[in-house]
Amino acid sequence: MELISCITDMHRKADALRREGKTIAFVPTMGYFHEGHLELMRQAKNWGDVVIVSIFVNPTQFGPGEDYERYPRDMERDLSMAGKVGVNIIFNPSAQEMYPARYQTYVEVEQVTQNLCGASRPIHFRGVATVVAKLFNIVKPHVAFFGQKDYQQLVTVTRMVADLNIDLKIVGVPTFRESDGLAMSSRNSYLTPVQRRDARNLYRALQRAQILAAQGVTRTELLVNEVRKIISSAPSIEIDYMKVCNPATLEDISEVTDTAVLAIAAQVGRARLIDNIVLKEGTRA
Amino acid sequence: MELISCITDMHRKADALRREGKTIAFVPTMGYFHEGHLELMRQAKNWGDVVIVSIFVNPTQFGPGEDYERYPRDMERDLSMAGKVGVNIIFNPSAQEMYPARYQTYVEVEQVTQNLCGASRPIHFRGVATVVAKLFNIVKPHVAFFGQKDYQQLVTVTRMVADLNIDLKIVGVPTFRESDGLAMSSRNSYLTPVQRRDARNLYRALQRAQILAAQGVTRTELLVNEVRKIISSAPSIEIDYMKVCNPATLEDISEVTDTAVLAIAAQVGRARLIDNIVLKEGTRA
Repeated sequence: MELISCITDMHRKADALRREGKTIAFVPTMGYFHEGHLELMRQAKNWGDVVIVSIFVNPTQFGPGEDYERYPRDMERDLSMAGKVGVNIIFNPSAQEMYPARYQTYVEVEQVTQNLCGASRPIHFRGVATVVAKLFNIVKPHVAFFGQKDYQQLVTVTRMVADLNIDLKIVGVPTFRESDGLAMSSRNSYLTPVQRRDARNLYRALQRAQILAAQGVTRTELLVNEVRKIISSAPSIEIDYMKVCNPATLEDISEVTDTAVLAIAAQVGRARLIDNIVLKEGTRA
Repeated sequence: MELISCITDMHRKADALRREGKTIAFVPTMGYFHEGHLELMRQAKNWGDVVIVSIFVNPTQFGPGEDYERYPRDMERDLSMAGKVGVNIIFNPSAQEMYPARYQTYVEVEQVTQNLCGASRPIHFRGVATVVAKLFNIVKPHVAFFGQKDYQQLVTVTRMVADLNIDLKIVGVPTFRESDGLAMSSRNSYLTPVQRRDARNLYRALQRAQILAAQGVTRTELLVNEVRKIISSAPSIEIDYMKVCNPATLEDISEVTDTAVLAIAAQVGRARLIDNIVLKEGTRA
């Protein structure tokens, strides 16, 4: 496994791979790997001749008071895990390399970043779109993999790629879960044992809403009330939002008559956790 | 000469050229060619194996009330002129192809777009950066050519390419001028004969300031007063700004002690004209 930290080296390596006719499959990450990350890498392995994984805790997507400083990092463990999955190249630039003095260019995806997490994290998706655009220019992939857990991120990146005519395919990979259903996240490491147990209720509530929708409950208000009831029974969870949205535009939906996603965010102790579930696979594009 | 208007076709063509090991030299334009454009194409011809010229009057860089609708267009004449210079491919997408329904992604370069034209055209450089980023992703060039007449545009694009780690070289080409010194511009076609004669004073004033700076006049105020005097002697010219700036950051300079550019913009009849001159080649990076 090759380790590259300089942008120019990565440019030259990507050029060489493309000249050889190799397909580059890319998994951008912030490191501190769990099974969800490894699943993205495995899928990348199936898709491309060469798998490149970036590890970069991106400062521009954290707001003031968020967990940029204490975001968990363990490069040695990450390298060992990625090596076992068969990753070919790790790209891990410094923040100084990515954002030198006088840095001043940002990519803004406007509508799909307004709702959900965008409402409480105003600069988050600008930071995500910007760093992903940079990484795509650096790594020059043919295909890139993103987890569906970060649903709004997946929609934002997909929208950016289409709008800016970036010639690559985005693959959304289903959320990897612990045995009790909790969506895997590097931030789960912040949870105390009690909070960890309470956190199960997030996915349980989503599943319950999915069942109700399948049984014909269409009113968002009723579905969300049910979700709130289940989550609120766990005292350490503080709900940020519970929204039923159009999966492409992320606009609120009041009646689930066509394709719809239920997305939630909650603070559990020091961890801000998010999850989502498809309520209805629709016919709408 | 090949004509391509579909983005997917251009992607595939650029891929094929790169696989063959060809160097792609790119000249983005809004068409209605003059000698300045042809000079960019000639330089591209010297640089690359294949010269691609885009012709696209980009709606997102025109503000309300600006001249998007009446911007001069003459595709037949443009194709004939480009063909004579030896251009290989013309890319001319429709506005619908470039900005389909739900389009919502914009590239913002923050500091260098604030001063000069950015002050009176608030969305202009967002539109420029966005369309140029799109065109780079579509055409996949190794090198791209921009005129120095649009100095702030050149600085903005150069900054964007560096910040977003786009792997290509930007070449700034010196301004092509009419025999009396007026910078060539598609918008010169808006001028009446009297306005056209008055417009000579723009470059005359810049040249006078350059001579004064060479003679040791360093105070911006004195240089700008001299420029104003010369320009004001032509009654049809209404000055928008006259600024002495740092050529990299475009921040105002009050004393010309190191590298400096004098930039002006003026309304002459229906035409908004811009021009600039290097006052001092400095030692600063």
